[in-house]
Amino acid sequence: MNLELGQQMHALCRELFPICRSLTGAGFRSSMDILRRELPALTMHAVPSGTQAFDWTVPLEWNIRSAWIEAPDGSRICDLAQHNLHVMGYSEPVEAELSLEDLQPHLYSLPEQPDAIPYITSYYSRRWGFCLTHKQRQTLQPGRYRVHIDASLEPGVLNYGEALIRGETEQEVLLSSYLCHPSMANNELSGPVVGTYLARWLQSLPRRRYSYRLLIVPETIGAITYLSRHLDAMKKNVVAGYVLSCMGDERAYSFLPSRRGTTLADRAARHVLSHLAPGYGSYSFLDRGSDERQYCSPGVDLPVASVMRSKYACYPEYHTSLDDLELVTPAGLAGGFTAVQRCIEAIEADETLNCTTLCEPQLGKRGLYPSISTKESGKQVEAMMNLLAYCDGSESLLEVAERIGRPIWELGPVVSQLKQHGLLVSA
Amino acid sequence: MNLELGQQMHALCRELFPICRSLTGAGFRSSMDILRRELPALTMHAVPSGTQAFDWTVPLEWNIRSAWIEAPDGSRICDLAQHNLHVMGYSEPVEAELSLEDLQPHLYSLPEQPDAIPYITSYYSRRWGFCLTHKQRQTLQPGRYRVHIDASLEPGVLNYGEALIRGETEQEVLLSSYLCHPSMANNELSGPVVGTYLARWLQSLPRRRYSYRLLIVPETIGAITYLSRHLDAMKKNVVAGYVLSCMGDERAYSFLPSRRGTTLADRAARHVLSHLAPGYGSYSFLDRGSDERQYCSPGVDLPVASVMRSKYACYPEYHTSLDDLELVTPAGLAGGFTAVQRCIEAIEADETLNCTTLCEPQLGKRGLYPSISTKESGKQVEAMMNLLAYCDGSESLLEVAERIGRPIWELGPVVSQLKQHGLLVSA
Amino acid sequence: MNLELGQQMHALCRELFPICRSLTGAGFRSSMDILRRELPALTMHAVPSGTQAFDWTVPLEWNIRSAWIEAPDGSRICDLAQHNLHVMGYSEPVEAELSLEDLQPHLYSLPEQPDAIPYITSYYSRRWGFCLTHKQRQTLQPGRYRVHIDASLEPGVLNYGEALIRGETEQEVLLSSYLCHPSMANNELSGPVVGTYLARWLQSLPRRRYSYRLLIVPETIGAITYLSRHLDAMKKNVVAGYVLSCMGDERAYSFLPSRRGTTLADRAARHVLSHLAPGYGSYSFLDRGSDERQYCSPGVDLPVASVMRSKYACYPEYHTSLDDLELVTPAGLAGGFTAVQRCIEAIEADETLNCTTLCEPQLGKRGLYPSISTKESGKQVEAMMNLLAYCDGSESLLEVAERIGRPIWELGPVVSQLKQHGLLVSA
Repeated sequence: MNLELGQQMHALCRELFPICRSLTGAGFRSSMDILRRELPALTMHAVPSGTQAFDWTVPLEWNIRSAWIEAPDGSRICDLAQHNLHVMGYSEPVEAELSLEDLQPHLYSLPEQPDAIPYITSYYSRRWGFCLTHKQRQTLQPGRYRVHIDASLEPGVLNYGEALIRGETEQEVLLSSYLCHPSMANNELSGPVVGTYLARWLQSLPRRRYSYRLLIVPETIGAITYLSRHLDAMKKNVVAGYVLSCMGDERAYSFLPSRRGTTLADRAARHVLSHLAPGYGSYSFLDRGSDERQYCSPGVDLPVASVMRSKYACYPEYHTSLDDLELVTPAGLAGGFTAVQRCIEAIEADETLNCTTLCEPQLGKRGLYPSISTKESGKQVEAMMNLLAYCDGSESLLEVAERIGRPIWELGPVVSQLKQHGLLVSA
Repeated sequence: MNLELGQQMHALCRELFPICRSLTGAGFRSSMDILRRELPALTMHAVPSGTQAFDWTVPLEWNIRSAWIEAPDGSRICDLAQHNLHVMGYSEPVEAELSLEDLQPHLYSLPEQPDAIPYITSYYSRRWGFCLTHKQRQTLQPGRYRVHIDASLEPGVLNYGEALIRGETEQEVLLSSYLCHPSMANNELSGPVVGTYLARWLQSLPRRRYSYRLLIVPETIGAITYLSRHLDAMKKNVVAGYVLSCMGDERAYSFLPSRRGTTLADRAARHVLSHLAPGYGSYSFLDRGSDERQYCSPGVDLPVASVMRSKYACYPEYHTSLDDLELVTPAGLAGGFTAVQRCIEAIEADETLNCTTLCEPQLGKRGLYPSISTKESGKQVEAMMNLLAYCDGSESLLEVAERIGRPIWELGPVVSQLKQHGLLVSA
Repeated sequence: MNLELGQQMHALCRELFPICRSLTGAGFRSSMDILRRELPALTMHAVPSGTQAFDWTVPLEWNIRSAWIEAPDGSRICDLAQHNLHVMGYSEPVEAELSLEDLQPHLYSLPEQPDAIPYITSYYSRRWGFCLTHKQRQTLQPGRYRVHIDASLEPGVLNYGEALIRGETEQEVLLSSYLCHPSMANNELSGPVVGTYLARWLQSLPRRRYSYRLLIVPETIGAITYLSRHLDAMKKNVVAGYVLSCMGDERAYSFLPSRRGTTLADRAARHVLSHLAPGYGSYSFLDRGSDERQYCSPGVDLPVASVMRSKYACYPEYHTSLDDLELVTPAGLAGGFTAVQRCIEAIEADETLNCTTLCEPQLGKRGLYPSISTKESGKQVEAMMNLLAYCDGSESLLEVAERIGRPIWELGPVVSQLKQHGLLVSA
């Protein structure tokens, strides 16, 4: 069933992949439209260019229609129609003819990855440029090159998507991802797609203790803009959150903590990954690189961590055309989904419990001491006894699960059983 | 002298070994009578069957007179008169004749330890059964078997022993052991025998800072029953305690902490064992298995740890007829006695001290700086200087001993000397 | 430049080396005169013999004019004029003729270091003695020996030097060294010489946040005497301090913490050495051996640690004639100087800072995001971003530097730049 989910998510990635997205513009909006089809609760907001957001200003809207270079032999190279990465993000429009020598400073390639088109942007200073494989760059002959970029940089809006799935309380869990990357898969279509599917799963639950807020923003400026509008409410309500980035390959699970590193989001993630993927990659906040930079900044200090598959900047295909839908797989996406799902389940299940008896209860007379035949049943009784031994109102279930070395999702049924028999109560 | 003590304890074990004990009944009482001969301060209490003790009920009293199986060839096997372990504890009475096939579900043996009779009980559900070596079981021939168990399960009492050795304060140290195991030596005659001898030693001391309470109960139900009657006083008075179990073989020293793991009992035991038996086995509270399960349960929370030789469930002879008085030795018992004795000495010595001078005192003018000739005297001066350096009223002697890496029993004479010279005072 | 400083310090050591110093007396004073020539702010104090200092009494003043042994063949050996170490410190005067046998108890040599003259003193009990190499001792022939020590032990004074270099506050950093060792270089001319040069450097600074107090005392009794006169002021004002001892060889850097181990002096020293000398020797307070014994004693409790080159009692030449000015080098002294200088710079720079923006500031618009070309500039931006991420008013710069893994001296310029742009403010 999870792999089926993985295939659905992979299909959605495939649909979104060809669209040319950036911080702003039509590509971001049409991508949002597709996500809203899957998750109607997702509403799209628009913030005008020039709006102040803390120390930042919402930039001009960028839209691009076509871009290519005509080589001296008349052939077209670096054609946007061939690959969105061929044009530097936020390139200004240009129509010109130049020598190869004059063109070179506008070209970007990776000598060490000669088959990869790099992903380059220049959001906050005016430039134009083309990206291409180093192999192709080395075939360029001297002569006159005609460059064409039909783009506009004009006052418009910055868009972001937001879905609130209400639970029993106003306290909420934040799931934040970003949609500004064109034609790359792990970083970054996996994030918004897994986020959308997590929201659908959350909607399907019979009850939710917490409310859930899914944000799909352009990276950095989008998070800053959202925070500048909602900081007080977020500081009041957010009990945990995750940045959803790099959720789709199969090579690793990774964890990046919040700034202080001991929030509920951190503890749940470490607990889940220690059981789900014992050799997971554990990074430092010093390795950060996405919107936790804003969510965890001094004075903002939201409890936001990151649970990932292969982390940005730590896999060779990162920020190149090689980060594609072969690298990201249905199983990879399903794994990313499950990891965050388990974290959410841990957060939902995490409550402080009290035993109702002094000394151990006599489980036998309640039929809770099964005839110990299999190893599994032995473990269940052991987990039950250990759970009872630590539920003294001083630590929550997540901490008890850590103490007794069992995943919290194994303890859920045990807690229910003990509550039914009146042996455990919520503190 | 300690080995002489070990021989006395071993002789007492030998006297108690043949008696058929269980949670309740005549065997428990006659064993108590022998211990009371050694320790007249030990009084025996009786609690009627059916009495409620927290979530539990005091069970019926079990007494057994004879039990055996007559084989098809007329020979007697599994005769209680041969070995107490041949009959399942709390077996109901039975007189019957059955085929081997029908007998088999009532037989217990250990294929992996073919020479051992296992120890099996069924305290809280009605059954009957016989235990035998797997070797013997494999020789049984088809045919009619006559089984005979002359036992009674009737309203009676649960007994336990209690001795209070008063000290200078009402604050007390608890020593708790259990006597319900028939014909096994490490687990469990070593515990009540070492406990009895510790009480005798405590009585012989010229002064005791703390009071000492020795409890000898049937395991689990006895501890729960005692706690249900004395919880408030115990919570008020007990500053440290030890469960005395598995005190008699020579293969290991073991430590099992209290639930929270940092009580005075834990700190004293870790300190003592780190010096007395540096490679000692350090277990987790998750490995618990005796009455610390009750003493440390939520809401009870007494500061009770366990100092053992080879820990229950961790040595091959455990709960079989192989746990005998060859396994338990005078030297083993002496070692178990000494380990707990050292813990008690540490608890008695543990006080917060203050230096009386600012800067180092001039030890030379008091003759406290010996002519440094031997390594030992060098160590003593070093210990004296280090002791003075840390006695600032902020930590107690046990913590200072840990800081300076010396066993607390080496510091006792140094503290006395420095107090005599007015260089140290109790805080 | 630092090596030039090293050469100046080495020259000063050479000038001081031949003087016969002890706890008290003319040698101590003439050595102080030389240091006062280099540091006129250094004033010399005198405390009369017999003065009470906490548990101690200022001893008689010792002065020695000549000492030697005349061998049976008329040759002079153990002549004070040849080496100051030939005479036991605080030897009482003697004129006598003895057999070799009677002389032997008064001779000190090191069989395991046959070429070294040991350093022996007997401050607090009356003795006389001579020290010599074991090689020489073995050549002594039977016969009559004439011993001559022209020394005096009379009421006089104990001297110490003190320089206060005022900063912006009364809070002060203590630098303490000792000058009582005759003709040894690492332990101990390096300490007072490096201390003198640190004071000169501190005087040359345009501003000092803290005041600095340099003490040059006779070891133990000098520190105790000073403390007995100034304890209240020191407890009020001293924020950090270092004992300057063993500052001059090239083989190691060493750290010995204060008693509690977490003062500002400790944290600054560990931070500095972890970057300056990553494999530095980290000792325990149990390994102490100089005036931190007094400064850190209970009730005194000043935040005083030790930053050293090869630590006393841990190098083979220690307390022998082999601890000379070949062992101590200009580079060794320069390294010792730099280590403490860095600690002082860290203490001066350590303040709590606050970011002024919510979320990351937009560094690009201020030109603070350099065109990332070299590895170094990459590191600077990274350090800047990490610094901003942790300056939330909860931890001081030293703790932030530890968190982000950069030496605090690299962060100084970054802090200045960010303060100029109004992005950081003192908390």
